[in-house]
Amino acid sequence: MAEYKAPLRDIQFVLDEVFKADELWSSMAATSEVNMELANAIFEEGARLCEGELFPLNRSGDEEECQYNDGVVTTPSGFKEAYATYAESGWVGLSGDVNYGGQGMPKMLTVMFEEMLYASNTSFALYPALTAGACLSLLTHGSEDLKQTYLPPMYEGRWSGSMCLTEPHCGTDLGIMKTKAVPKGDGSYDITGTKIFITGGEHDLNENIIHLVLAKLPDAPAGPKGISLFLVPKIMVNDDGSLGDRNAVRCGSIEHKMGIKASATCVMNFDGATGYLIGEENRGLAAMFTMMNYERLSIGLQGIGLGEVSYQSARAYALDRIQSRAPTGAVNPDQAADPIIVHPDVRRMLLTQRAYNEGGRAFAAYVGMWLDVAKGSDDAEQKKTAEAMVALLTPVAKAYFTDRGLDATILGQQVFGGHGYVREWGMEQFVRDARIAQIYEGTNGIQALDLMGRKVVANGGESFRLFRAEVESFLAECSGLDEEVSMLKRALEQLSEATDYVVSQAAEDRNAIGAASCDYLNLFGLTAYGYMWLKMLKATQGQEGDFYAGKQATANFFFKRLLPESQAYFAKVMAGSEPLMNIPAEHF
Amino acid sequence: MAEYKAPLRDIQFVLDEVFKADELWSSMAATSEVNMELANAIFEEGARLCEGELFPLNRSGDEEECQYNDGVVTTPSGFKEAYATYAESGWVGLSGDVNYGGQGMPKMLTVMFEEMLYASNTSFALYPALTAGACLSLLTHGSEDLKQTYLPPMYEGRWSGSMCLTEPHCGTDLGIMKTKAVPKGDGSYDITGTKIFITGGEHDLNENIIHLVLAKLPDAPAGPKGISLFLVPKIMVNDDGSLGDRNAVRCGSIEHKMGIKASATCVMNFDGATGYLIGEENRGLAAMFTMMNYERLSIGLQGIGLGEVSYQSARAYALDRIQSRAPTGAVNPDQAADPIIVHPDVRRMLLTQRAYNEGGRAFAAYVGMWLDVAKGSDDAEQKKTAEAMVALLTPVAKAYFTDRGLDATILGQQVFGGHGYVREWGMEQFVRDARIAQIYEGTNGIQALDLMGRKVVANGGESFRLFRAEVESFLAECSGLDEEVSMLKRALEQLSEATDYVVSQAAEDRNAIGAASCDYLNLFGLTAYGYMWLKMLKATQGQEGDFYAGKQATANFFFKRLLPESQAYFAKVMAGSEPLMNIPAEHF
Repeated sequence: MAEYKAPLRDIQFVLDEVFKADELWSSMAATSEVNMELANAIFEEGARLCEGELFPLNRSGDEEECQYNDGVVTTPSGFKEAYATYAESGWVGLSGDVNYGGQGMPKMLTVMFEEMLYASNTSFALYPALTAGACLSLLTHGSEDLKQTYLPPMYEGRWSGSMCLTEPHCGTDLGIMKTKAVPKGDGSYDITGTKIFITGGEHDLNENIIHLVLAKLPDAPAGPKGISLFLVPKIMVNDDGSLGDRNAVRCGSIEHKMGIKASATCVMNFDGATGYLIGEENRGLAAMFTMMNYERLSIGLQGIGLGEVSYQSARAYALDRIQSRAPTGAVNPDQAADPIIVHPDVRRMLLTQRAYNEGGRAFAAYVGMWLDVAKGSDDAEQKKTAEAMVALLTPVAKAYFTDRGLDATILGQQVFGGHGYVREWGMEQFVRDARIAQIYEGTNGIQALDLMGRKVVANGGESFRLFRAEVESFLAECSGLDEEVSMLKRALEQLSEATDYVVSQAAEDRNAIGAASCDYLNLFGLTAYGYMWLKMLKATQGQEGDFYAGKQATANFFFKRLLPESQAYFAKVMAGSEPLMNIPAEHF
Repeated sequence: MAEYKAPLRDIQFVLDEVFKADELWSSMAATSEVNMELANAIFEEGARLCEGELFPLNRSGDEEECQYNDGVVTTPSGFKEAYATYAESGWVGLSGDVNYGGQGMPKMLTVMFEEMLYASNTSFALYPALTAGACLSLLTHGSEDLKQTYLPPMYEGRWSGSMCLTEPHCGTDLGIMKTKAVPKGDGSYDITGTKIFITGGEHDLNENIIHLVLAKLPDAPAGPKGISLFLVPKIMVNDDGSLGDRNAVRCGSIEHKMGIKASATCVMNFDGATGYLIGEENRGLAAMFTMMNYERLSIGLQGIGLGEVSYQSARAYALDRIQSRAPTGAVNPDQAADPIIVHPDVRRMLLTQRAYNEGGRAFAAYVGMWLDVAKGSDDAEQKKTAEAMVALLTPVAKAYFTDRGLDATILGQQVFGGHGYVREWGMEQFVRDARIAQIYEGTNGIQALDLMGRKVVANGGESFRLFRAEVESFLAECSGLDEEVSMLKRALEQLSEATDYVVSQAAEDRNAIGAASCDYLNLFGLTAYGYMWLKMLKATQGQEGDFYAGKQATANFFFKRLLPESQAYFAKVMAGSEPLMNIPAEHF
């Protein structure tokens, strides 16, 4: 059966020993009161909640699914009670702004809690995750009035949030959306249109849902520059903050999906619903982009969390399940067979999972750190660097975490053999739940285009060179790790060469970016994980004990058995666009 | 929505133009009456059945699932009627022995029909596939009496077959099974025990089910050499072939699974059931191995079939769905956006699917050819070569087809974006249905061990050298394909070097085989697909028209964008066992 314990020791290792979080936090005003002691207390409390309340509802939630009946969505048994506990303990506002009742915790800290949440119950995790995203857009772009009315009850968890972007005919290409917003003359707008794939668009967890809706004004310019963002409450809010009448927004149906079945994915019909403008007219996409780096990193964590719970379950099974003998002779002579963890190929699967999860966890902390610096630093130069790094690394994190997350859940399922395919064992649900993370919040193909086009080619590789310089300076600091240093150096050289190649190709071939994007992102992600593994390995130098020995062995596996994949990605990037474009559409 | 047309043109290309099937068939007595004209007629008839009867039941079968009630299993609506049509048209006995009412078609032909079956409805396909496997074991090892009684009604489809191997505590390690067989003194045996994961162990498609059951005699030696094979009918058969009383075998429950939900996966309880020995006592595993090469190839085809239906659906969607503009400027200026097939990254996904499917289809024909030669050749030397090739190539086919099949279905789902995750579109079912093929009929890890250990290291690489010599002699025949020839040569050299390395390592390191196995199999599979793609490319030389142009473009994509993966697999094999074994179990 599946099992899960929050990886507290590893989280502490990453934050404290690898990234020296205390030093960073004390250096910035916004986080000066945060330290590892507080962080550990939060993680322990969070672990109790995730292990004790949310993980036990994961399988049953998958079996029961959300139910739809005439506009009403009912979440599976236990979700409402668990959500009440979650909200009452203040978790919804963990990263929220302190001026509106949030707890102001840095992203570098909250990514660790988010990973636990996704690991224990991805469907459940999405309700507060969407709320946090909506709060962030509102906080950054909303009027003071809107913020004072809506943020406190959202941080308290009394009200949830949803993000309404996609329409039946447009997902990636939001410029062609049809939802209309007509000014009513009193400062509010009439919103009319249909949105699909709205996570948490309707549910029974709490008393109100605040929809953030993209729509077009009557006179809006065509394309993405004609989109505005509106706040549309499910239930209207009176001046005193109490709830009023139902607004004209209604859930038309919910999707039946491959996974995340306890997360309500809604069709939302806005039929002249009252909405309030967030930010400026026609600047809705910009307002959305603010929260996107946070949301994309968060969705990436879904891949790590599901990889982690799958790994823990597979490890336990491999230690317990006996089948055949070790190649080197019986290790369990008193029993009919040996535990399957003796077999090299089972170890290959487990170590691959682990190398992805722990490499990803460190990279999440690293990206979280840059987000915190970008937000909190007083040093203009450092802030600028941090913003460039966030922009560069976020698409890598989202796509690479979730691609490797799917791989990890598939490997964990494989360790269970036939039992992995049977629902009651729980391993196949992790695969189904992980699969969506590669698709939503911008497909991983879109992440790759964003990285290759906007984040690399558009600035001639300048942001990439920031990253390269940082890795190079770290490589120079390492001693006693010659083999790993030279392996990472080689991968970094390939990534550099690939960067230069695409930057130069893109000037003459408009298909160069799209042709390279996906393999380039993989090459980047793998190199970045190499950087993380070297950082971790360095942090274990001079340390003793099982934890450090396991970490060193996993690093060794990563460098020798996973990093060589860089050669394949490099060759694919360097093949250019010709193999993709030299075939007319009708020959497919 | 998902769509499917049997790939008749490509099947014809592979059999007729690449492998010159007519020449082979006319050269052997057993197949002397088979020719491409007959084959095409069979494929057209088969396509009609698959497209018109079976594919329309695929989605509904997934939604309805098999139902269990007190020992009785009910298949989804329409399955019984479709099965009746299927059986009445003689499809069950397509590859059956002509002396018992089968149609005696060669494997090289039937693999193509099997692929269609899995593509249109994998759950349905498994009922006749298991019957065919049971028939083959019975045919090869059963007494004349048993064969005359059981084979004709099984070939007719009036009775089905099942293979009962796995028990709750043993799957891979059959040596530790507990099911007992006690001689009754009248030539029959009392069979008692529980078998799990029995595909088609119980259902309502026809009137009887013939179980082939592995069990141990009271005085059997321990381990795999103490296992015997028995035929256990669900309903006893009278001397005149009519049905008698129920036998003491009963379905205890069915599994709730990730996919293939319309295929009944049964727990079977044998409670002193009457069984008949097939072959010799304690030689049951050998009797099983006979059918295994056929069954493993067949299960491999599940990966190709599902990859194909996923590709066809994704291609249609990519031509139809409009979203954003082509990087080189609008191709659809009258509409709001361009079809997504203009995007290089969408093409990457489609071409990857296609390269896997078509490479796999050719490889299936190739392995089928060796199976036919091994069975039908009069030339002792050729027969011996063929047997070695079958043994070598079968685990590659099973594992590589199904691993790449899963990849292909995931890519096809990704092309659909969010719609790919929604059940009604059908794309996510292909992923769920494909996943089992990597697990059952020997997990792909077991296939890799079989390849690396028994088929390569055990004979010091001799079988591999047969394969290498064949590829090398083909390379020497190619002209005008210098770039592809040199790329394939390089992959073949890596595979040779990897072979030599593991053969030599295995002499001193007992973990060497398991450590290399999975990456070695991937390197082998990729190189074998390279061989197939070069064969196909050669067959297109001098040809004109869309079909050949599309084939050439896909070959180009394969060589430039997929074959470079060989570098990563090679590096992983050459890393040896240390990164896997240098960590005690308790450090995981």
